[in-house]
Amino acid sequence: MKLAELGEFGLIDRIKAHVAASPSVLLGIGDDAAALVPTEGFVTLITSDMLLEGVHFDLSFCDPRTLGRKSLSVNLSDVAAMGARPRHFLLGVALPKDVPLKFMDGFMAGMLEQAERFGATLVGGDTCASKGGLAISVTALGEQHPELVLKRSGARPGDLVCVTGTVGDAAAGLNLLMRGEREGFLVSRQLDPTPRVEAGIALAAAGCVTAMIDVSDGVLQDLGHICEMSGVGARLELAKLPLSDEYLSECAEDPFALALSGGEDYELLFCIPEGRDAEALEVCARAGVPVSVIGTVTAGSGIELAAPDGTPYRAPRRGFDHFA
Amino acid sequence: MKLAELGEFGLIDRIKAHVAASPSVLLGIGDDAAALVPTEGFVTLITSDMLLEGVHFDLSFCDPRTLGRKSLSVNLSDVAAMGARPRHFLLGVALPKDVPLKFMDGFMAGMLEQAERFGATLVGGDTCASKGGLAISVTALGEQHPELVLKRSGARPGDLVCVTGTVGDAAAGLNLLMRGEREGFLVSRQLDPTPRVEAGIALAAAGCVTAMIDVSDGVLQDLGHICEMSGVGARLELAKLPLSDEYLSECAEDPFALALSGGEDYELLFCIPEGRDAEALEVCARAGVPVSVIGTVTAGSGIELAAPDGTPYRAPRRGFDHFA
Repeated sequence: MKLAELGEFGLIDRIKAHVAASPSVLLGIGDDAAALVPTEGFVTLITSDMLLEGVHFDLSFCDPRTLGRKSLSVNLSDVAAMGARPRHFLLGVALPKDVPLKFMDGFMAGMLEQAERFGATLVGGDTCASKGGLAISVTALGEQHPELVLKRSGARPGDLVCVTGTVGDAAAGLNLLMRGEREGFLVSRQLDPTPRVEAGIALAAAGCVTAMIDVSDGVLQDLGHICEMSGVGARLELAKLPLSDEYLSECAEDPFALALSGGEDYELLFCIPEGRDAEALEVCARAGVPVSVIGTVTAGSGIELAAPDGTPYRAPRRGFDHFA
Repeated sequence: MKLAELGEFGLIDRIKAHVAASPSVLLGIGDDAAALVPTEGFVTLITSDMLLEGVHFDLSFCDPRTLGRKSLSVNLSDVAAMGARPRHFLLGVALPKDVPLKFMDGFMAGMLEQAERFGATLVGGDTCASKGGLAISVTALGEQHPELVLKRSGARPGDLVCVTGTVGDAAAGLNLLMRGEREGFLVSRQLDPTPRVEAGIALAAAGCVTAMIDVSDGVLQDLGHICEMSGVGARLELAKLPLSDEYLSECAEDPFALALSGGEDYELLFCIPEGRDAEALEVCARAGVPVSVIGTVTAGSGIELAAPDGTPYRAPRRGFDHFA
């Protein structure tokens, strides 16, 4: 069945049938706007990301279900990076007219299973025709007590720089996809990232984090954002970068270049005061994710990189810029 | 100057410099997510719309500033249709790499002047490169007391059907644009619609509206949504459709077809109990917009159309469906 047979409003009804009611949703899909009931004493965290065919994803690389999951995951990762709990989301989707209904069914199944896993309810959005490729826009909302919100701007000289999980995997996975690979650990890190929602909330609650961001544009660039917003610099010890075995066997020649500049790992990069690393490690371990201390925050500006032998390392690339 | 020289983060800084602080914004542009402080006792209304080059707009039809205004207006219109006051918005924009910076400056100037006019603050979003045309995604947020929110679902048999302003103008304007016209009343109704924000809020406060929607897909289709959600039918008297002189001179042959099916007027279409029309007219007059009673809500389903001579009228088209 083609979308043209179902029509715009048939498609909306079809999506709506799969969405459960939630007490925080006074009015969900199907009106001019959704009406959400904020939790007393909380602020609303809100973020929006577009994903475009040919820019952010390649339909020959993945099935619709995985693309649905990732489209939500990258937005939930931004909510997680504030230390907030995801609550609601909106989906905008522009579809080429020849897209089979089966594609949309798979895409929505993936998106809604990821939503259920992380406690987010679909409350509205927009469907329209595209004369170019598929375009996806997700707006995700979360909640947190205002005093627990984790910004990019609180890092202080002497803080430790930490990162969850491993870095560089998603970029190495993308290289494999472009060479024709379609499975394995690195490929799945690129196509189906896991937003660190529980770790983000746990770190916020622990009160030991001074600044946080998610690694979407690469460690170097995202740490750069923390440094800029906090008015500090940083020194990274490359020997401490958490690299997976799969990544190391792919990038044996220079394991640091891609680990520093490769985006889309969607790990949490954060700073904590000296001496609170054991606490951060324990908090994240309880949330099911390992943490590594990879450097320190310094006075001044700029990021210094120390190779394993202690000599300065010069990164060949900084990270991803959409217009560069 | 090209965007490539400024870079993604330079562009974000450039936009941020034009946005004023607001006490309801704990954290605005520049972090992983914005943090908004909800007003106690209010619910959050949220809506999202995509606008795609070649589908929703044609860059040869309008200047960037007007496009910026319209991109926000269509979303504010959805907030207005809930009877809510606009508060915040997010902007996602996917830009072809050769777009001159001047284009973005004009676009943002238009969007931000419309935002200021209607009291909405830009709090975040996303900028990325597009390999196709320009793609815009706006998410708008508003607030209202939960008991004053105006849904599509409350119309009852016997209610009067009302609409603000005039209808059909935007569709007639689009026809003129496609024939090469670039100015005049009808063209400006298509390119630069005014969301009926003050009228929407005033109608909500008056408590006389049983159901409301904005006219984005055409009177017939949008009234159809109210009927479906309310479980009612309606009878429209075509002689009462508010048509502008400019529209009438363009569509003299059959003035009703386009007035019923033409979208993008962004007027408010609403139902009120019998006898409360004087009140609704007065409320809207104070908000600076005329109102016409164009029919009645009926038991049953479907929309009956009565020609000026009382005979049944059959509409050649229903309205806009993106996949039809």
